[in-house]
Amino acid sequence: MRAVVCHEQDLQVTELPDPVPGPGQVLLRVLRTGICGSDLHARVHSDATADMAAEVGYDHFMRSGSPVVLGHEFVGEVVSYGPRTRGRWKPGTRVVSMPLLETDDGLHMTGLSPHAPGGYAELMVVSEAVTFEVPDGVDVEHAATTEPLAVAWHAVRKGRVGRKDVAVVVGCGPIGLAVVLMLKAHGVRTVVASDYSPGRRALAERCGADVVVDPAVESPWDRFADDSRYLTTAPDLMQLGMSTMKRLRAVPFLPWPRVFQAAEKLGALPTGPVVFECVGVPGIIEQVVTAAPLQSRIVVVGVCMEPDTFRPSMAINKEVELRFAFCYDPAEFHTTLQMIAAGTVDPSPLLTGTVGLDEVADAFAWLADPEQHAKILVDPSR
Amino acid sequence: MRAVVCHEQDLQVTELPDPVPGPGQVLLRVLRTGICGSDLHARVHSDATADMAAEVGYDHFMRSGSPVVLGHEFVGEVVSYGPRTRGRWKPGTRVVSMPLLETDDGLHMTGLSPHAPGGYAELMVVSEAVTFEVPDGVDVEHAATTEPLAVAWHAVRKGRVGRKDVAVVVGCGPIGLAVVLMLKAHGVRTVVASDYSPGRRALAERCGADVVVDPAVESPWDRFADDSRYLTTAPDLMQLGMSTMKRLRAVPFLPWPRVFQAAEKLGALPTGPVVFECVGVPGIIEQVVTAAPLQSRIVVVGVCMEPDTFRPSMAINKEVELRFAFCYDPAEFHTTLQMIAAGTVDPSPLLTGTVGLDEVADAFAWLADPEQHAKILVDPSR
Repeated sequence: MRAVVCHEQDLQVTELPDPVPGPGQVLLRVLRTGICGSDLHARVHSDATADMAAEVGYDHFMRSGSPVVLGHEFVGEVVSYGPRTRGRWKPGTRVVSMPLLETDDGLHMTGLSPHAPGGYAELMVVSEAVTFEVPDGVDVEHAATTEPLAVAWHAVRKGRVGRKDVAVVVGCGPIGLAVVLMLKAHGVRTVVASDYSPGRRALAERCGADVVVDPAVESPWDRFADDSRYLTTAPDLMQLGMSTMKRLRAVPFLPWPRVFQAAEKLGALPTGPVVFECVGVPGIIEQVVTAAPLQSRIVVVGVCMEPDTFRPSMAINKEVELRFAFCYDPAEFHTTLQMIAAGTVDPSPLLTGTVGLDEVADAFAWLADPEQHAKILVDPSR
Repeated sequence: MRAVVCHEQDLQVTELPDPVPGPGQVLLRVLRTGICGSDLHARVHSDATADMAAEVGYDHFMRSGSPVVLGHEFVGEVVSYGPRTRGRWKPGTRVVSMPLLETDDGLHMTGLSPHAPGGYAELMVVSEAVTFEVPDGVDVEHAATTEPLAVAWHAVRKGRVGRKDVAVVVGCGPIGLAVVLMLKAHGVRTVVASDYSPGRRALAERCGADVVVDPAVESPWDRFADDSRYLTTAPDLMQLGMSTMKRLRAVPFLPWPRVFQAAEKLGALPTGPVVFECVGVPGIIEQVVTAAPLQSRIVVVGVCMEPDTFRPSMAINKEVELRFAFCYDPAEFHTTLQMIAAGTVDPSPLLTGTVGLDEVADAFAWLADPEQHAKILVDPSR
């Protein structure tokens, strides 16, 4: 089969032996594979990422010296089954799978490890246990976005965003855009999206963002200063405590312990907006912590691979939360696929191009320019 | 009246005019005032803290050039009332108050601003609205710990610790010890406390810590590696996803959407321990993020005034949360006082000494040695 092999930062179309499904595995013909920002990063910085992965116990992440087939956002059709499988789906059935492959020597990250070749190829194997049938009528390109949308869905769930909360999405790369899509699919009324790129802002609008901001011109945080539901300065917080107590004290014979028990249960402080940090460069956490309203819940989805510096004292003064989000669980992956199938979320604004295997290296270069592309899919049959 | 004035890092007992209660204010005779770590810090680094406070909108924090009476953890007895007060308590009634003073020119931080002199003095004024009567029979020294215990209570609430959760307290200074006390008062079954100082470890034990660890000898995180309720490595997480799906797939005709909806509602991933970071020095966040189990909820209570560097990618890989905790709200302050009164929490292990106004400067020096002291109270009548 033909596949794109990444080796020493080089992407080369190569003829490889057809993979043979092992125990519990299914062989797929790849229909589409999305190019992920992690692929761009892994191509250049895989050794640093491998060191980090080894530190958390996974020592089979790709390194620059070992050839790897990238691609972990894929949809394919069933070709055949390995031993000890249930064979639930007829050959030709379209499926998506979590990029998690069980092999004889353990579990591996599909498309990011030499032990589990990914979807930049005509054929690939997946673990049957984490594979899901694509419902009838779902566009194959939409199905290919299940994985990145599941990342966004997990982030939205991690942020515990209510429909009446204001959500701020900082950075409208593919993941930021996917977060906008999932926030709107979840029914969040006000989604503010911020990006320096006009092209990305236009896409954020198409994804359903209610307010789109160019941070070079206006701050996404200005709107909170005039909104009485949010605390933006320390005196706001002091004033809230004092005036609440004055109002309560004006009521004679109040049963204090019960009043305060109720206040504690309700959560006495107003909460800030839920912020999704989807940029992932050094300095962005400090910037968001300093600029966001008090009590902001900041979900960090952008992966910053370098060490980063911020001021914990500022985070304490503003009582923010940093919730770091990684991947998704099987339930979230499945729910995302169902949301796509039901039309609750329409990923088409994300999709800006499709290439064949021969153009993958070019596509990596195109993706460096935010005006040109968001998500490029690879169609190995082209 | 006599008071300890802090000016250009110097603490000097000074004769000051007796304060006169303004509108809404109550004049107190100070019975006891605790010396807080923030006081030690403010004495030396007030200008940096003032800059930070100004950035969040409060530009009246003390500066080294303006004389200030420190002390924001106090208990006193009512002497007299200013205009526009309710006069609810008879003179001689013992009260505590949130360190928040309303004056003609706004709200101020008592004991940390030249506009609101604190409790290192024979007399002080407080705002009636945020003052609470100390229930009968409460030891005056215990009542003096209401403020620091309220900080700890807020942190415990912020961490949403369940009784069955394991809580890890990193650093057993006065705030770490107060967190241990409040965790046990809250009924948390397993509290692990960690500190390099034998003296502080002994105090942590007296505060009720179930496991006390010297991090120079053993890691407080070792226990989680062998506990199947916790995920400590990336393969643990991958294995959980895979084996859950295998078990589910073994059941024929399962209604997937409903199963997954239920899984999402329950929160499919196990949560890590709740960690209380009570050290507040550069590097500690990186250290805790790297060493703690996956999905740890880290409540940052220790105030690190310098910029700090950590690896966001590690935080993402481990999906930790950093919840920064600041002060408390009036309900939490009141609840803490009631807990002390009811004997739900016994602050006596914290209290290691009492000094007069003349010895405050000495006490600041003693507090530099963790073996000697935890919380020193000032008794202005001595």
